[in-house]
Amino acid sequence: MEKLELKYEGKAKKVYATDEKNYYWVAYKDDATAFNGEKKGQIADKGEVNNQLSALFFTEIEKAGIPTHFVRLLGQRDMLVRKLDMIPLEVVVRNIVAGSLSKRLGVEEGFILSQPVVELYYKDDALGDPMVNESHVAAMGWAKLEIAKEIQVMGLKVNEILRNILAKAGIDLIDFKLEFGIDNGKVILGDEISPDTCRYWDIKTREKLDKDRFRRDLGQVEEAYQEVFRRVKEVLAGQ
Amino acid sequence: MEKLELKYEGKAKKVYATDEKNYYWVAYKDDATAFNGEKKGQIADKGEVNNQLSALFFTEIEKAGIPTHFVRLLGQRDMLVRKLDMIPLEVVVRNIVAGSLSKRLGVEEGFILSQPVVELYYKDDALGDPMVNESHVAAMGWAKLEIAKEIQVMGLKVNEILRNILAKAGIDLIDFKLEFGIDNGKVILGDEISPDTCRYWDIKTREKLDKDRFRRDLGQVEEAYQEVFRRVKEVLAGQ
Ligand SMILES: Nc1ncnc2c1ncn2[C@@H]1O[C@H](COP(=O)(O)OP(=O)(O)O)[C@@H](O)[C@H]1O
Ligand SMILES: Nc1ncnc2c1ncn2[C@@H]1O[C@H](COP(=O)(O)OP(=O)(O)O)[C@@H](O)[C@H]1O
Ligand SMILES: [Mg+2]
Ligand SMILES: [Mg+2]
Repeated sequence: MEKLELKYEGKAKKVYATDEKNYYWVAYKDDATAFNGEKKGQIADKGEVNNQLSALFFTEIEKAGIPTHFVRLLGQRDMLVRKLDMIPLEVVVRNIVAGSLSKRLGVEEGFILSQPVVELYYKDDALGDPMVNESHVAAMGWAKLEIAKEIQVMGLKVNEILRNILAKAGIDLIDFKLEFGIDNGKVILGDEISPDTCRYWDIKTREKLDKDRFRRDLGQVEEAYQEVFRRVKEVLAGQ
Repeated sequence: MEKLELKYEGKAKKVYATDEKNYYWVAYKDDATAFNGEKKGQIADKGEVNNQLSALFFTEIEKAGIPTHFVRLLGQRDMLVRKLDMIPLEVVVRNIVAGSLSKRLGVEEGFILSQPVVELYYKDDALGDPMVNESHVAAMGWAKLEIAKEIQVMGLKVNEILRNILAKAGIDLIDFKLEFGIDNGKVILGDEISPDTCRYWDIKTREKLDKDRFRRDLGQVEEAYQEVFRRVKEVLAGQ
């Protein structure tokens, strides 16, 4: 597999063409951003953790019957993925209230939702990724209504899969964000699943083990990323 | 019918008990507020227009098969309504982009949506009425999921009814807000339908004939309210 021209550089990853036209080479960076790019920094070895942890999660999700873009690892911070026609929506699933939802609904962080919440956001940095609903998606033509529904159902299934693995690792899955794309008319889970895109709390200590340590300057950022990776690897190795 | 104790005074109406326990006396005020109460004022005779225009619309909506709380007029600015157990959600239906949606999606005011958009807001002044979706409603227990779905479907039906009447009055229905409640287990349309809760644009001149004249200091506020009322009355009288 050859890495060819850079197709797109995002906030967390570089996406390259390869010598196979339906595949992309994704290189995970250590760059970290928060608050819609207002806060910028680096988290040592984040690229390695996010790449390899995403690979572990995608493999489990695929085993559970949900198609993902992940093909195989290409290195410490590189993976091969199926090239997708990305849907410009973020699917956020929440089990426990945290972050923006806490402010929006006036509910304290840590409030346990009686059932998972699933939200759609229009992926647009300039607009600050506004929350939208299915009718906005259909009326603005960002995706067909059925696809907007399908990615939410898939998000809720991914939630069950991840929650189960993480619980065994002593971690509460608070919330997470997914991105989907289309390949050959089929909806496929893309992007990444990492401490950048999820909130993880230690089940016992309630310590934050995710990007909130960076957002809120809590220190021990790289240690938290490593810790989650170590625990998940251990759980999956033991299965 | 006797007006008894004041049960609730809101930003636009006073709600009184009556000598019949399942009915409320609603008195419409001239008070106007905007931007979540930051801007305050009065619009001369607004109470009369909003009361009588709401009565006309509720009557037409009821005829079309959607139950409303409206029973009968009790005076120039007073109506008798069925007492409802209000659902703490606002249903907003939009045909053309305006106001907050324009900013949120980065789309110019006047953009014609390819199909109506329907939004839910959690009615809470302290939180600034945040936009929510069905999963928030279910997870927070504000209403059953089926009811959240039902009020959106009812909102879309009301849209067709109002659009049709208003088109004959030379008015484009840009967007509007509804509130629903429960009576005897049945979902009923409550509150008001007026230039306070709708955006109306003259079909030809695109002149605003609604509360945006107050919000944006465009002048001729009471004249716009009167004009809409006059035109709708004329259309319905001619049917
Ligand atoms: N399989 C895929 N095919 C095409 N694009 C993808 C795929 N997976 C992820 N992407 C896109 O790659 C881009 C780079 O990722 P990232 O650095 O996280 O960007 P961003 O700053 O937009 O979040 C994103 O736009 C993401 O949607
Ligand atoms: N049929 C009804 N039964 C009970 N309450 C109602 C009914 N119709 C409207 N209401 C409520 O009456 C209150 C007064 O209206 P308003 O002045 O518009 O208040 P607000 O400032 O909350 O918008 C609102 O809380 C509204 O939801
Ligand atoms: Mg990203
Ligand atoms: Mg009101």
